[in-house]
Amino acid sequence: MALPVRTIFKHLHRVVHKFTSPKRFLSSGSGSGNKEPPGGGRVFSGIQPTGVPHLGNYLGALENWVGLQNQYPSVLYSIVDLHSITQPQDPALLRSNILDMAASLLACGIDPERAILFQQSQVSQHAELSWILGCLTSMPRLRHLPQWKMKSKVKKEGSVGLYTYPVLQAADILLYKSTHVPVGEDQVQHLELAQDLARVFNNRYGDLFPEPSALLSSTRKVKSLRDPSAKMSKSDPQTMATIAITDSPDDIALKVRRAVTDFTSEVTFDPETRPGVSNLVTIHAATAAIGVEEAVCRARGMDTAAYKTLVTEAVVQRLTPIREEIRRLRGDRAHLEAVLARGALRARELAAPVLQEVRQRVGFC
Amino acid sequence: MALPVRTIFKHLHRVVHKFTSPKRFLSSGSGSGNKEPPGGGRVFSGIQPTGVPHLGNYLGALENWVGLQNQYPSVLYSIVDLHSITQPQDPALLRSNILDMAASLLACGIDPERAILFQQSQVSQHAELSWILGCLTSMPRLRHLPQWKMKSKVKKEGSVGLYTYPVLQAADILLYKSTHVPVGEDQVQHLELAQDLARVFNNRYGDLFPEPSALLSSTRKVKSLRDPSAKMSKSDPQTMATIAITDSPDDIALKVRRAVTDFTSEVTFDPETRPGVSNLVTIHAATAAIGVEEAVCRARGMDTAAYKTLVTEAVVQRLTPIREEIRRLRGDRAHLEAVLARGALRARELAAPVLQEVRQRVGFC
Repeated sequence: MALPVRTIFKHLHRVVHKFTSPKRFLSSGSGSGNKEPPGGGRVFSGIQPTGVPHLGNYLGALENWVGLQNQYPSVLYSIVDLHSITQPQDPALLRSNILDMAASLLACGIDPERAILFQQSQVSQHAELSWILGCLTSMPRLRHLPQWKMKSKVKKEGSVGLYTYPVLQAADILLYKSTHVPVGEDQVQHLELAQDLARVFNNRYGDLFPEPSALLSSTRKVKSLRDPSAKMSKSDPQTMATIAITDSPDDIALKVRRAVTDFTSEVTFDPETRPGVSNLVTIHAATAAIGVEEAVCRARGMDTAAYKTLVTEAVVQRLTPIREEIRRLRGDRAHLEAVLARGALRARELAAPVLQEVRQRVGFC
Repeated sequence: MALPVRTIFKHLHRVVHKFTSPKRFLSSGSGSGNKEPPGGGRVFSGIQPTGVPHLGNYLGALENWVGLQNQYPSVLYSIVDLHSITQPQDPALLRSNILDMAASLLACGIDPERAILFQQSQVSQHAELSWILGCLTSMPRLRHLPQWKMKSKVKKEGSVGLYTYPVLQAADILLYKSTHVPVGEDQVQHLELAQDLARVFNNRYGDLFPEPSALLSSTRKVKSLRDPSAKMSKSDPQTMATIAITDSPDDIALKVRRAVTDFTSEVTFDPETRPGVSNLVTIHAATAAIGVEEAVCRARGMDTAAYKTLVTEAVVQRLTPIREEIRRLRGDRAHLEAVLARGALRARELAAPVLQEVRQRVGFC
């Protein structure tokens, strides 16, 4: 049973936000243990526990998460299980998906020494701050946000959790006084709510939260291998459409071989008129860590069939160590649980004083 | 600046719920430290921190809270500050109102050895369970509940907190596996939501929560001294309408003397045709701990002016020790804080294993 892989802020970003200098990040050292966001800022992002990510998640988001670890002095990545239950979940599957997501993130290169990797539900302050922020959010403010508009329509009726999802997201971000939040286009409005709530809180109770800045989006989007007009998605009913990062070399070869292209045999990069082959170029360039022009250059003289072999090789080469590391980590459940437990501990250390300050400002103590 | 005193479950009840035998309560001893509700059941109720209660709160609810301590083996009373911020609050006032409410409850006879008296925001599990239950609640389910219908109209626009208020209330109740909840008529629909959510959770994740039963409502309702068609209310703009339980004997005498009656001098009890004098009889009977008939009997031969003196005496006699105890407790802030801290500790001891069980069933661990 496949569940859609959804990152909260799907597209992480190589481009550094215009208001922040990369030098500041590099010069401010490791400050992830501080209560205040260190000089270079603090990044927060979350991903829903949907098990093993696919190639689109990896190239579009997770690879960038790894990069951000070195660019920012303080980075938090949360497996947002409280968000995931806004849609029905099978408990046993959710449980194993949380560990699979943790294994995948580690295998992709998230370093728990540099980033705080934790499970949202293990840090009580997320739900607590969400309640308080919900008292500062008007009902109509949420009505037109993407999460609700998209998902409540599908089932004709959404839950309170689905409606208030963006408030919890704002709490996720503000709880750590995060300064930088990578967002995809579909999440810009949700980040705006977090910015608004920071302002509303600061105006009412005195300055506390930095207004989190959006990091500009990467344009690298991996498309479905069966329908290059659509994004690659775990919930795609066509199994040939999506490469999981744990797919075997044979499976990868088969899926790439079956990838929809067109009747021109030459390899070019033109996403508008030749989306299928261009998607392969995107995948090739990203997995081989080369530019798109270089990828096209390497394909010179090949027809699409031959090129698919080249793409397969690049993907297999890139994913093999990740696949093997995930397999190894899956066999070491105690280690995964220990990493998440330590992450939750560190997250709580940052969250507790902020929530305590919120409580005091609100008048609870 | 007066804030409305609102109890979550306004009218506490002398009548024991039909499905439960009072003998069972008496015979089951003190079980408030157990994780499971003891055989005689567990009572939960909450009151918003609005400072010092008025006579209507005391006679209509708090006096009964005191009685329930002896009828049930496990009783929790919460000062529900998370609920109070669903309407704007001044932080300094909220802070002092929490302590004033704690002092008032103790002065009225709540015994922290028999009842767990605590501040809701100090027990993180309330907000956490509320999030989870919100994911099991459909949006339309809340639209017609009293809290939202009444209060969002006043300001034309309510907050997310106000809308989801009944979900937090359900979490308050279920978090302790409460079996009995005293409710006023205006809260019956809110309790029904808690019952529904217990059923929905149990159906989806296996039996965990008892379906909380409503305790039948007391009919003793104290009316405004200036307008006996309305309830006595702290937010009444007419200062003569409401007796605070800390009012001086002179203030009480003045307010009772000015109480609206009618042009018949004889004292009778007929709330329909003679609401003013009947309200005085109600107050007299309740404060003197006698029946209404006995109160009317004692008034024989008196005109309303003379009767008002009798009523004043009864009220003053009843409230004097409470007023003095509140004054004493207000001067001992450390004691109040210690009582609330210990209450929060005991509440957490009950709440933590229940929430942990919820987390496991949902699939978070």
